[in-house]
Order: sequence, then structure tokens, then C-alpha cells
Amino acid sequence: MANQVEGFDFEQRHGKERVRVARVWKNKDGRHFIVEWSVSISLLSDCVASYVRDDNSDIVATDTMKNTVYAKAKECSELLSVEDFSVELAKHFTSFYKQVTTAIVKIVEKPWERVSVDGQPHEHGFKLGSEKHTAEAIVKKSGALQLTSGIEGLSLLKTTQSGFEGFIRDKYTVLPETRERMVATEVTALWRYSYESVHSIPQKPLYFSEKYLNVKKVLVDTFFGPPKVGVYSPSVQSTLYQMAKATLGRFPDISSIQLKMPNLHFLPVNLSSKDNQIVKFADDVYLPTDEPHGSIQATLSRFWSKM
Amino acid sequence: MANQVEGFDFEQRHGKERVRVARVWKNKDGRHFIVEWSVSISLLSDCVASYVRDDNSDIVATDTMKNTVYAKAKECSELLSVEDFSVELAKHFTSFYKQVTTAIVKIVEKPWERVSVDGQPHEHGFKLGSEKHTAEAIVKKSGALQLTSGIEGLSLLKTTQSGFEGFIRDKYTVLPETRERMVATEVTALWRYSYESVHSIPQKPLYFSEKYLNVKKVLVDTFFGPPKVGVYSPSVQSTLYQMAKATLGRFPDISSIQLKMPNLHFLPVNLSSKDNQIVKFADDVYLPTDEPHGSIQATLSRFWSKM
Amino acid sequence: MANQVEGFDFEQRHGKERVRVARVWKNKDGRHFIVEWSVSISLLSDCVASYVRDDNSDIVATDTMKNTVYAKAKECSELLSVEDFSVELAKHFTSFYKQVTTAIVKIVEKPWERVSVDGQPHEHGFKLGSEKHTAEAIVKKSGALQLTSGIEGLSLLKTTQSGFEGFIRDKYTVLPETRERMVATEVTALWRYSYESVHSIPQKPLYFSEKYLNVKKVLVDTFFGPPKVGVYSPSVQSTLYQMAKATLGRFPDISSIQLKMPNLHFLPVNLSSKDNQIVKFADDVYLPTDEPHGSIQATLSRFWSKM
Amino acid sequence: MANQVEGFDFEQRHGKERVRVARVWKNKDGRHFIVEWSVSISLLSDCVASYVRDDNSDIVATDTMKNTVYAKAKECSELLSVEDFSVELAKHFTSFYKQVTTAIVKIVEKPWERVSVDGQPHEHGFKLGSEKHTAEAIVKKSGALQLTSGIEGLSLLKTTQSGFEGFIRDKYTVLPETRERMVATEVTALWRYSYESVHSIPQKPLYFSEKYLNVKKVLVDTFFGPPKVGVYSPSVQSTLYQMAKATLGRFPDISSIQLKMPNLHFLPVNLSSKDNQIVKFADDVYLPTDEPHGSIQATLSRFWSKM
Repeated sequence: MANQVEGFDFEQRHGKERVRVARVWKNKDGRHFIVEWSVSISLLSDCVASYVRDDNSDIVATDTMKNTVYAKAKECSELLSVEDFSVELAKHFTSFYKQVTTAIVKIVEKPWERVSVDGQPHEHGFKLGSEKHTAEAIVKKSGALQLTSGIEGLSLLKTTQSGFEGFIRDKYTVLPETRERMVATEVTALWRYSYESVHSIPQKPLYFSEKYLNVKKVLVDTFFGPPKVGVYSPSVQSTLYQMAKATLGRFPDISSIQLKMPNLHFLPVNLSSKDNQIVKFADDVYLPTDEPHGSIQATLSRFWSKM
Repeated sequence: MANQVEGFDFEQRHGKERVRVARVWKNKDGRHFIVEWSVSISLLSDCVASYVRDDNSDIVATDTMKNTVYAKAKECSELLSVEDFSVELAKHFTSFYKQVTTAIVKIVEKPWERVSVDGQPHEHGFKLGSEKHTAEAIVKKSGALQLTSGIEGLSLLKTTQSGFEGFIRDKYTVLPETRERMVATEVTALWRYSYESVHSIPQKPLYFSEKYLNVKKVLVDTFFGPPKVGVYSPSVQSTLYQMAKATLGRFPDISSIQLKMPNLHFLPVNLSSKDNQIVKFADDVYLPTDEPHGSIQATLSRFWSKM
Repeated sequence: MANQVEGFDFEQRHGKERVRVARVWKNKDGRHFIVEWSVSISLLSDCVASYVRDDNSDIVATDTMKNTVYAKAKECSELLSVEDFSVELAKHFTSFYKQVTTAIVKIVEKPWERVSVDGQPHEHGFKLGSEKHTAEAIVKKSGALQLTSGIEGLSLLKTTQSGFEGFIRDKYTVLPETRERMVATEVTALWRYSYESVHSIPQKPLYFSEKYLNVKKVLVDTFFGPPKVGVYSPSVQSTLYQMAKATLGRFPDISSIQLKMPNLHFLPVNLSSKDNQIVKFADDVYLPTDEPHGSIQATLSRFWSKM
Repeated sequence: MANQVEGFDFEQRHGKERVRVARVWKNKDGRHFIVEWSVSISLLSDCVASYVRDDNSDIVATDTMKNTVYAKAKECSELLSVEDFSVELAKHFTSFYKQVTTAIVKIVEKPWERVSVDGQPHEHGFKLGSEKHTAEAIVKKSGALQLTSGIEGLSLLKTTQSGFEGFIRDKYTVLPETRERMVATEVTALWRYSYESVHSIPQKPLYFSEKYLNVKKVLVDTFFGPPKVGVYSPSVQSTLYQMAKATLGRFPDISSIQLKMPNLHFLPVNLSSKDNQIVKFADDVYLPTDEPHGSIQATLSRFWSKM
């Protein structure tokens, strides 16, 4: 919320972060489902008086926001996507409180995956996987919606089919050109859906859960290329662009996608003392590093949308 | 950088993060100085061809950026502020490379503090403190500048003189009103200076280092109030606002300040079994929690500035 | 190493930690293999003079240890288990340096897993999984060996078939008894092999890699029970014991196993204000917590072995 | 607890970790005091039946342990040391429960430090410092005691007066000898007091709090040497030994001390391309690293004691 107060411009928001909730559903046939979410809520609301005049009468207490997460989770009688829950929560805050003009709800889902025992999916057993599904719903009092899904922590690596050549060489340049290197990254993806109102989102149950898996598959497949030959990457930039373009090409209701793909370097190991060569690199021994790392990020959008 | 490519809007940036450098200066009289910085560089540049046409000829390699950090640190013949170094680096990238239109350099300084031994400051001994000084310079090819300083990890707590009353009560509200509670937060502050060109920043050595200490003092003093009686906080919102206002009131060359002050709850402990009361709270025993936490953030700006 | 120096008992060790190395092998048919290890080396050696008399002549520099990791990785001409590499490294230090009486090499392997694209395993594409395989070799100059493998970060959860009843009730007890709760844990397992000499370990390639997968399967299957009905857990203690016993029962060359299974609580959510019940728990809405957590750990050993 | 069960050796313990508690005391003159502790409890007790026979009747529930922390904190009517609280808690568990033979209580104290405003100590304002004070009490049913205090996260650095020469050179050695380098470490210290019974510890209030500050001062002063000239360190090993020896020399009731002092390398920066030298090191520009790091640890004990 932006205001003018005491001769200044003033923008403020308040909310509750890291509200953890798990919701379990138990089907009649014995199969259980679980989601575990970490919910962050941020409200833009008319409550400047609490900042300036010690008057809290327009403040939604952050404790109340937390309680609402549990109350709304209780109301969910069937398994639902993290996107649908984030929209539900955000809608609630903007419609229930006259002071709230915009609600921003960001959720990170823990990747609990059903285990298999003796080749059979287990009725009530789950194991934690790796990358995480995220969702963010921004809802205005009017019902206007920005709905963004994402992946955090998707670490990918390929041992060949990557190079980096022809870049600017100047007096600070040491890096040799190469057509043969490892490339590793931890993808953070955010994609925005084209649904611009809380009333227009698909009603099909688990629509967004399925979409999440499909987007992830497109990103992964594009990164690696065909299983036998792969695909040559002339730069992380180029690979990132291909992944973004494939996503927009494949999913008409995704209007834009942002990818952050740090270049996590696997440095060739060459080691010598004055007298002898200890290790001579032959595309075999690498020093993996997190610090420093390259940072490459980009957003690709259809004309009629912007992140 | 925003472009149109293949029928899409496209925005991209690339850079190097977590470049760690330490710089030592040794005075003739035997006194040493050290800074340790973690530098992140992000360049907006005309290099879309690397994404779209496998042509890296306009790419500044992130390895080159890293080397530049060390080369520029070497050139610093005297102790300088983290702000001055961030401006120097950003200026370099925009002036040295025709492709680079904007450089964003963010630095976090490790809080190495000179130790005292036998009541005397040590010539070359340092110990790590707690909160961190940060700086970010955004420089355009024209020389236009946005310079922001900050504090990370400033954890403050007071055991009284805090309350929270009169907020909205509804069917999700459980929190009781109180005029007596603990309040704890981990302040993240960012303040923007009014210097809008790389040519207009103060030339006085360590100008920004001194300013950092002064801003921190104003924030801390306003949070706590006078040593004997303190100052009553009717909400984190109100305290945050007073801190922001005091900063702008005191420092004419700061044009805006953003404060993030999560409310890190110290919950009163009351414990009962069916049969007996185990702990009855009397402003004495608390359960400190990080998860969930309230999130309160705001930006206060002079009219002629915006963060 | 324990010694007496200057009238004191003195024990010391030194080494290098967090040495990161990746090793790639490329088969002639185009299939690549990769391991990524974080290696920690600790040497017990006769080098007290470096502590007491400023004489470093018996010190293996930790930088030399790091170099050795890369040199030894280079020598591995074929894919090998993390256990075999840890034994190789430890053997080297005790045989190469007369001063070194015992070498302790601990390695954590990053869980890079081959991806599938179009239903086919990819020749050179890998994705990071979740739990980690660890190995520790302790080798003495005599060739005596202690070889321990482990799992870190194996997070398991079941939504039913767990209870906790009949425990001690006293004036500090609040927890109700139950036969229906969720149970979640992050298993850390360490198992020691019965091979007591570097000469007696199995020569079959990837013997220990395969064993790791088999032990993990026994632990997971025992935790969850059959896929349709599961198995009732009367306490984390009981489940832990069943897992340990199943492991020793199944693998004759494992002489002992230690399991740490923190009880990561999923608290039932009941929420009320003075006026109304906001959430009434019905095995559906939970508050997951990491802090505090129960800690249950135990070691089960055959008589002729000890961890 | 070690037992034989079903033909195996069996050792087990259980407890509660990360129990967070804050305790506030308010003096009549208006001055407040606060401690914040993270408590870990581990009990050795006769409860094998819970593992083997699904019989929990000898189990102290970990939830009960948590409640006890709060109940005991409540009972502390005056500010006390973290050591005294750890002994109190451990005594309780061994005396209150017939099943418990040994209690291990480990506490980490958050470094809340009283702030000064206008040059005066504030009555109720605190700021988080850096390194942490720890305590561990191991108490047996007999009253036998092992009491250990410690420091975590004490990061120290000196810019000169450090070298490393005369170490073993072999075909894996690259590191040059030097008499001029930076040295940085993060000290973890544990020292054991000679009090061997819960009845023999000093009754003076805050005895151990004061001792903690004194030990820290000896460690820091020994690491750095006199403020003008410092003290030459021929190796981290040598410095560590001097610090341990100074501690035992100064404090008669400390019977042993363990120091872990990783060598956190500040690598000299030399950078060249084929054509030119980019950075030539002159004791000025360093690359600080955490990974890998040297690890040096040792324990120095009086003859009649052992850690």
C-alpha cells in the first residue's frame, strides 16, 4: 500500500511467514493423501494508522492470519493443488476484510512422494523427494488474479554436450574456450498463468498439480535432449532460452516464464608442483564449486503478458 | 535488458555471485586494516544473440567478472568503504564494455572488528561480529547511479515496553490484547542515498562507512528509547515507522529507507495437564520461535525519491 | 594420537575437510558415469613437535592431503563405490607416511541419479536426488580396518499405523495416549561391515554400492510394512529396533547398525477462541514442526562386533 | 544404556532436542535480565521393553522432558548460569525417575547482550552478539558429574605473524613454505571442570558465567599476542597448543580442554592470462574460502582427568 504520510511517501505490507500446515485425506478404500505446505501471507491494507497514530483498529493480526491457514485447510474436503489453496486463501483475505486491498499468498510444498513396497504403491507411506513445487497467488479485492507456479531446487547436470566459445576476450579474461565441458545448475523456475481473475481458473481438480509435472518434464527434457545423443549447449544462456521457449510453445495458458539457472562450475583439475605434474585433466577429474557461481536469469513472455 | 525476440518479450541478465575477496592494507606505523567482501555482479547488456543464435560474441564471461573483482581490489591503494568499491566496480563494467548498459553490484561485508588486548586496540587482530553491512550500486552507462546501503541480521530484543491492542477481532482471532510483552526482531534495513550520478558522491574517504555506523545508531536508539525508561511500542508497525522517520529526519542525503522487521515471537508459556497447572505465565518464561513469524515491512521516502 | 607432553595428556589429529571432487567415466558405447564426493580426511600421526616445539617436519600439510584426493581420483580407471575409494585413500596415508598411524576418511556422496528421457535412461544426464550415501574408512598402519557405510537425510512419513501408549505419567506429563497418529522421521543410519582388514574386503566391483541400495530397501520396507495394510508402530523405539534387527538378519557381513530417528512431530491442530471452535482436529490438519523434536537412537550389534 | 537382547548387544538413548526457552528476571530497580537457551536432553534409561516388547511403561515421554524444561526454568527465581541450569535439569531426571541412570543435558545460549544507549547500559534492551556459550552436564544417579562448558563460533583472524614452514614435501606437495600469511579460524572450545559430583560445584552465583568470559579472554589474548607486536604462529597446531596450555595454566578447576580450530584459508590471489599478469600478490588481495578447510583439533588434559 502506498500512501502519503507526514510529508513522505509510505509503502507498507504485513503478514505471516513460515506457517506450516499438513493436510491428510483418507479415502474410503484405504488410500491416504498428504500435502505439507509452508505458507507465507502478505497483506496490502489500509492500516497506516497503526504506523503513524498508534491505532491498530485496521490491523489484521498476523496470529489471525495463521489461524486462518488452519481453518481453511480444514475446509478442504478433498485433495487439492497448492495453487488452488493459495488462491482460496488470498480470496479469503481480500473478501473478508474491508481493509485488505491485495493479498499475496506464497506457498512452498514439501515433496512427499508415495513409496512403493514390493512393487506396489503404499497406501499411507511417503518419502521426501528433492525439488519443490511452489505457488503464489496475488488477489485483489476486485477478484483480479496473478497466479504463478514454480520449481525450486531442481539440480541438473550433464557430463558432456556443453561448451562456451567466442565470448569477449580482454585484459581480464583468463577462461579458455571449450566445446567440451560439464554443465550443472540448480533451476529455479516461475511461470505465470494467463488466468486474470479468480473466477476464470480451471475447475478441474488437480489441474495445476498435473501441469506442474508437465512443465517440469518439458524443462528437464529440453535441458538434456534425446537419451542417446543429448543436445549441444553452446552456453547456459542458450539452453535457458530453449527451455523457456519450449514451455511457452507447449502450454497455451502459461503467459510467461522466468528461469534462474546459476552456472555451478565443475572446474577441471590440473595440479603441478615445481617438479612434476600431479594431475593432468582429461575430462575426468573435476572440482565442483558453489562459490562463486555464474548467474543467468531471463524471463520470456507472450506480448499480452508481463511478469 | 528487455527485447523482443521471436515474437516474445524477453528480459535477461547475467553475472557472477558470491565472489569472495579480502583486501588488507598495512600502514607504515604497523596498523593493519582488512575488509572481506562477498560480491555479486549482474549485468544488463546487449547479448541476446547468445540466447537466441548461439553467438557469444557480446558476452562478458562471468569468469572475467570474477577476475575483475580481484584486479579492482588490487588497485585500491587505501582502505575504502564497501559503497565506494561497489560504485567503482559498477562504473568499470558500464564504461569498459560497449554492450553493458547497466551494472548492478551488490556486496555483503563480513563484520571483522578489531580486537582489544590489554585494553589496547590490536594492530593486526580481528574478531567476527554479528550484523552485516551491505551496499548495492546500480550504474548506467550515462553515469546515473542508484546507491543503496543496508544492514542485515541486526537482532534486537526488549523485555518490556511493548504491547498490541485494539486490532481487528473476528471469528479467526485468538490472540489476547496486551500492554506487556517481549518484542524481538531481526532488522534488515536498506537506505538509498540521494546521489544520482557517479560524479556527485562525496569524495571524503570512508564517508559511507561512517554514515553506516550513524544510521545503525539511530535505528537502535529509536528501537530501544532512553536507557532508563525505554519507549513504549504499541506495535512493531509503529516502532518501524519511528525508526524510518528518525533516519530520514537525521540524514538529509538519505532519500528513502526500507525496513523489514519480522516479529520473532516469544510465546508466553502456560502448561497444564488435566490435573494440575505445570507452568503459569508471569512475564517470566517464554518459548522463542522463528516459525511462524510476523512479517512487517515498509518504505519511507522523500517525495522526490523512490526505492 | 595420545601422548604425554609437558606434564599433560595430549591427543591431537589434523586433516582436511570438505574436499570436493567429481569423477567422470565415459564408456566406449557412449554411456557416462559420475560420482561427486565431499571428502574429509583426519590423520593420527606422530607430529607432536609441531604443537610443542614449532617443528613441522613430521606434518603432512593439509594442502597435500587435498591434492592426494585428486591424484587418487585420477587413478581410478573405473567406476567404484564410495566405500572402496575411502579405503584406498586411507590406505595411502598410512602406508605412504611413516608418521601416520591411523587415517580416517569420511566421504559424503551427492545423490546424482541418471535421468530418463522418453522412457530411456539418458547417456550423460543426471538429476539430484534426496538422501545421501556416506562411507567412513578407518585404517591403521597394520592394515586393520573399520568400514562403515551410512545414509543421511532419509525422510520418511506415514499417515497412520502409529501410536504411543502406556508411557510414564507424572506431574509433568501432558501428552495424551493415542493409537492413531502420524509419524515422521529423518533417518540417519550407519552400519559397520565385518571386514577387519583392508585385505579382506570383497573384490567384486560396486559390491558396496549394491549393498547400500539393499540396506536402504530393508530399512524403508520395515518402516512402512506391506503396501496395503502397513505395520503398526507402538513407538519410534519399536520401529527403530525392527529396522535394525531386519538389517542384521538379512546381511551377514554387517556386524552392527546405528540408527538415529528423530521424531519430527506433526501436532494435531485444535484452535479455539473464547467464543468458538475454529479448528477441531479429526486426523486431518496438522502442524509439522522441527523444533523441538524427539531424539531416539540405538545401536544393535552382533556379539563379536562393536561400533 | 547397553544391554543384551535377542542375542545382540544393544545400546539406546532417547530424549528431546531443540527445546527453546527464554527466562526473564526483572529487578526491583527496573533492570531486566534475559537468557535464551536451546536445550537438548538425552536419557540413558532402563526402557528396552519399549524397543523389544512394545511395552512403553518405562519410557519418559519426550514431551514430558520438554515440559520439564519450562517447569524448571519457572522455578529459577534468580539469574543463573547455563551450567547451573544444565546441572539442575540433569539432576532432576536422574532423581525423579527410577528408570533413568544417566541424564545428558546440552544447552546452547543465544548471545543476547545488553545494549548501551547514550553511553548508558539499557535497562531492558538487548542485541544479539556473535559467538555462543554452551554447557553440557552429564549426571548419574549416584550424583557423579561431568560438567563441560564451551564456546561455539568464535571467529578470529590475524593479518600477519603467521607462517608455515618445514613440513613434509613429497610428490603430492604443492604448498610453498612461508613466514608471512593470514590466519583465520572459527574456534570451537570445550573445557571440562574438575567437579566430579553435583554436590561439589561452586555455590557462588554466576560462577561459571564469569569463568566463561575469563576463559574466552585467555583464548583470544593467546591467539593474538600483545596489541603492538602480536605473537608469531609457526602453525595452527602450535597456536592451538599455546591456547590450551594457557587455559589449564590459568584455571586450576579446569581439568581438560579440547580445541577445534579449522584453518580457514585466505588464498593469495595471483591471476594471469597468457598475455599479461592481471593480479600479482603482494600480501594484499586474498580469496577467502570455507571449502576445503584444514581441520586441527586437540585435547590437553591434566593427568587425573580425561575428556
